[in-house]
Amino acid sequence: MAQQITLYTSKVSTFAHRVEIALALCKVPYTRCEIDLWNKPEWYIPKVNPLGKVPVIAYGGPAVPPDEPSPLSTKLNESLVLVEFLADLYPASGLLPADPVLRAKARLFIDAVSTTFLGPASAGIRGVLHGGGDATPLVRALEALQALLPPTGFAIGEFSAADVALAPSLARVEMTLENNLGEYPAEAREGERILRLIRGPGLERWAQYTRDVLTHPAVASTFDKEYNLERANKRIAKLRAEK
Amino acid sequence: MAQQITLYTSKVSTFAHRVEIALALCKVPYTRCEIDLWNKPEWYIPKVNPLGKVPVIAYGGPAVPPDEPSPLSTKLNESLVLVEFLADLYPASGLLPADPVLRAKARLFIDAVSTTFLGPASAGIRGVLHGGGDATPLVRALEALQALLPPTGFAIGEFSAADVALAPSLARVEMTLENNLGEYPAEAREGERILRLIRGPGLERWAQYTRDVLTHPAVASTFDKEYNLERANKRIAKLRAEK
Ligand SMILES: N[C@@H](CCC(=O)N[C@@H](CS)C(=O)NCC(=O)O)C(=O)O
Ligand SMILES: N[C@@H](CCC(=O)N[C@@H](CS)C(=O)NCC(=O)O)C(=O)O
Repeated sequence: MAQQITLYTSKVSTFAHRVEIALALCKVPYTRCEIDLWNKPEWYIPKVNPLGKVPVIAYGGPAVPPDEPSPLSTKLNESLVLVEFLADLYPASGLLPADPVLRAKARLFIDAVSTTFLGPASAGIRGVLHGGGDATPLVRALEALQALLPPTGFAIGEFSAADVALAPSLARVEMTLENNLGEYPAEAREGERILRLIRGPGLERWAQYTRDVLTHPAVASTFDKEYNLERANKRIAKLRAEK
Repeated sequence: MAQQITLYTSKVSTFAHRVEIALALCKVPYTRCEIDLWNKPEWYIPKVNPLGKVPVIAYGGPAVPPDEPSPLSTKLNESLVLVEFLADLYPASGLLPADPVLRAKARLFIDAVSTTFLGPASAGIRGVLHGGGDATPLVRALEALQALLPPTGFAIGEFSAADVALAPSLARVEMTLENNLGEYPAEAREGERILRLIRGPGLERWAQYTRDVLTHPAVASTFDKEYNLERANKRIAKLRAEK
């Protein structure tokens, strides 16, 4: 019934990472095609995504190499739409449970994640991650998300699309803080200080949840931390040199 | 199987209107509770929605009057989550079709609608609606949405959640323009001029689609145009008087 899936993705993309986690959870074979976002292949925009972004799933159509995409496959974009698409294709994956109320709760959590880490409300958080200093915006945002969690387990109990939507941001926030990847001087160790704060009093439940999400096999197996760290280190070294 | 549904709503809310259309499409009996957003009942924030917004569905729990909400019902908010919730509860409504690709296409259309009418990208459109003048931002946005439509019918063919998400904005855009409800002087008739533009050359398919959506029974039966018009007229009269 299900047809071939080709995923156009990038190891650095939080959005694409969502879809890789979802695919891992569905245990579905697929063709993975890494796109260099700074040097896109000339066929990508005309044949896969006019917006030039990842992730995209090419679904169905004839068996073709990913760098020769067929006009006969359906090209779908938008990470959250793709997660729902996989949940629809693979109900047994548990990406979304069967119960309509639990599905609504997963989607409400995703909505809260989107508001927290994207859009205007996320400027405060990004300021803390990149600049250090007063960590209040980050702490407040995580407290608000923590308040949505049940006492134990994942966002709606079992691991689901709700956690999938958040995990890539969580992984990158931890990496950024652990490694002091901010524009402050390296020796200030602002990241490590902030990491202690968000693992400390008042955010214990959040810290536990973060560990549970980041050690989930579908998350751990799809995050190339070494690669992301190398790229982030280069970017930060350049920024610090320019100061 | 399905449990009682109470909808907290407001005739003036585009977001709440989505859920009313979805409920009409599901042909499901529900208790409707109009909330005066400028004078909310004191029980609304503590017992229904800490954010103080509509729409909210209270689902299940004991049979209680809507102004005495029970802590035993599940309170769900966010209009798009509620539309998905109703699609999950009532698959036969056609709110979302069974085919995963068509479901993804409906969600992509909804995503485009959200970007067009909400968020930073919508400032240009709102400027045109409220101020008149150069209608290019509105025309360009509608052209982009028009490009997503199939040659005939609704956003994904049959009437679906995609059209439900858009219909309340469409209804209010038409009302605003038809009645020159902008901050420009009434006699400038800027709204009528712009309406002719967006019904004119280049947007014929959009104009047809608009008519199809606004005359769909689930849309027409849930839009109290007289009430919305009266409120909008009062607001504009006040704004014009203050100039
Ligand atoms: N809303 C989209 C965002 C996708 C997106 O912004 N992808 C970025 C990488 S994280 C991208 O491909 N950027 C490359 C570009 O815009 O040229 C989604 O959720 O999938
Ligand atoms: N994102 C929400 C937005 C809901 C919303 O903003 N509702 C407005 C009416 S259109 C409201 O209730 N405002 C009253 C208030 O904020 O006090 C949704 O889609 O349901």
